[in-house]
Amino acid sequence: MNKKQLEEKTKQTEEIIFKYLPKAEGAQKPVIEAMNYSVLAGGKRLRPMLMKEVFEMFGGTGEVIEPFMAAMEMIHTYSLVHDDLPAMDNDEYRRGKKTTWAQFDECTAILAGDGLLNFAFETALKAEKENNPYLVRALGILANKAGIYGMIGGQTADIEAEKPESDVDGEKLLFIHEHKTAALIQASMMIGAVLAGASKVDVDKIEKCAYNIGIAFQIQDDILDVTSTLEVLGKPIGSDEKNHKKTYVSIYGLERSKDDVKKLSKEAISILASFGQRNLFLEELVEQLINREK
Amino acid sequence: MNKKQLEEKTKQTEEIIFKYLPKAEGAQKPVIEAMNYSVLAGGKRLRPMLMKEVFEMFGGTGEVIEPFMAAMEMIHTYSLVHDDLPAMDNDEYRRGKKTTWAQFDECTAILAGDGLLNFAFETALKAEKENNPYLVRALGILANKAGIYGMIGGQTADIEAEKPESDVDGEKLLFIHEHKTAALIQASMMIGAVLAGASKVDVDKIEKCAYNIGIAFQIQDDILDVTSTLEVLGKPIGSDEKNHKKTYVSIYGLERSKDDVKKLSKEAISILASFGQRNLFLEELVEQLINREK
Repeated sequence: MNKKQLEEKTKQTEEIIFKYLPKAEGAQKPVIEAMNYSVLAGGKRLRPMLMKEVFEMFGGTGEVIEPFMAAMEMIHTYSLVHDDLPAMDNDEYRRGKKTTWAQFDECTAILAGDGLLNFAFETALKAEKENNPYLVRALGILANKAGIYGMIGGQTADIEAEKPESDVDGEKLLFIHEHKTAALIQASMMIGAVLAGASKVDVDKIEKCAYNIGIAFQIQDDILDVTSTLEVLGKPIGSDEKNHKKTYVSIYGLERSKDDVKKLSKEAISILASFGQRNLFLEELVEQLINREK
Repeated sequence: MNKKQLEEKTKQTEEIIFKYLPKAEGAQKPVIEAMNYSVLAGGKRLRPMLMKEVFEMFGGTGEVIEPFMAAMEMIHTYSLVHDDLPAMDNDEYRRGKKTTWAQFDECTAILAGDGLLNFAFETALKAEKENNPYLVRALGILANKAGIYGMIGGQTADIEAEKPESDVDGEKLLFIHEHKTAALIQASMMIGAVLAGASKVDVDKIEKCAYNIGIAFQIQDDILDVTSTLEVLGKPIGSDEKNHKKTYVSIYGLERSKDDVKKLSKEAISILASFGQRNLFLEELVEQLINREK
């Protein structure tokens, strides 16, 4: 996969997402401006991209996938908007741009996050007109993986883990990574499969594959924080150690971490390659995501 | 309707709502405890009660309505949890109990609100097993009336209206009341009708009826702030004037306000009485809600 191909896919994905953003007009203008600011602020658009690629791998066609792609990016974005709040991570910048509360104000950022989460479901429900028989199942996956038994659960555990009295072991760290990171990747890939009419067995395989991708992605994050350089990573290295944050590397060591990334990655790719119709772009995307150097 | 009948109905409604609350266990325990604290903190349970009564008026039977009743109360509750935050209304007490952020902390309250909003959709989707053909339509109403074109839109306009430079006229005030208050009452009553299989014409009538109930309820609020006594109301009277808050009474005067409540109320009741099968408890409930003295 060359850089240009990925850029092209990212652009196509953004065109779909942006189509579903609400118009900033009427008395709702202040909240919609903040919602759209947050979504337009950039990002890899990884989740909707994975969703579409899995959908196509399973022979899915038509526009039913589009509202779900937009909904997924809205949920990912709202989680960042609320995470960045002063009462949470208190971050003023993200990807070189002011975070939503810093650009507007706290009150607007809280409402914009709520607005995005709610609008995600409103948007996904627009798929109704495509008469896809798996709509409700896809909505169920979206709601479950984004909620307390998915991403919000991971966020809760992460906040608990940051308290001085907490004792984070490998099991707790895996819970956080599985829920905070892997859950939305699972939802994205599972929804792609479900809406394309994949069998229960295949959707289960995709869930496992996405789990591996999410966990490997996070372990690689921990590895890069130790092995990369400020220049390559574009953010300070060694920040986890400085913040006394338990990471996969600090619990299991660098060698085992690297081995586990390889193992998880190999298994994820081999699951993807096991389906009747292969999607080489998707396989390369996953490979590149996990083994990235920044 | 006597007091005991209303108490009985409230108890029945709470039993249904509480059945759908998540168990506070596992790594999610801190957020689930805060979510359940907020829902258990009390309230009139008006929205789910209206939903069930309209459902039954249109001949609805079975359990399909229950997850939607719980979902509606979760959405109403999350909106209070986020409204009370220091960055929003900064309220430490509600109904004599500590608000969620004051009882736990800001971070937990933000997450608990997100958790409730997301879990509302997760809960409503549990109605899937009842095989009701109108499930997706009911979900669409829930999402739309709770979001930026409903309640969140009203909240946005309300915050704008509180800024010193804003000039609130009758039209703007009506927008706020319609979206912030009437929208969830509309959703509740419309979902009851839709899930019972009511016709499009009847659902439209119910939407209009619920609009009247919501607006009349809010105007009555404004009237009581002027005419009631601290003793009857249980909270300081004259607070709107003290806060230089534009109200229906300050814009249109007391007489016109009282007339409009009568007009809206009469029309709402006559819509309810116009359907084939009447629900006398519902008619009395609406009458009592609007013409309450506290």
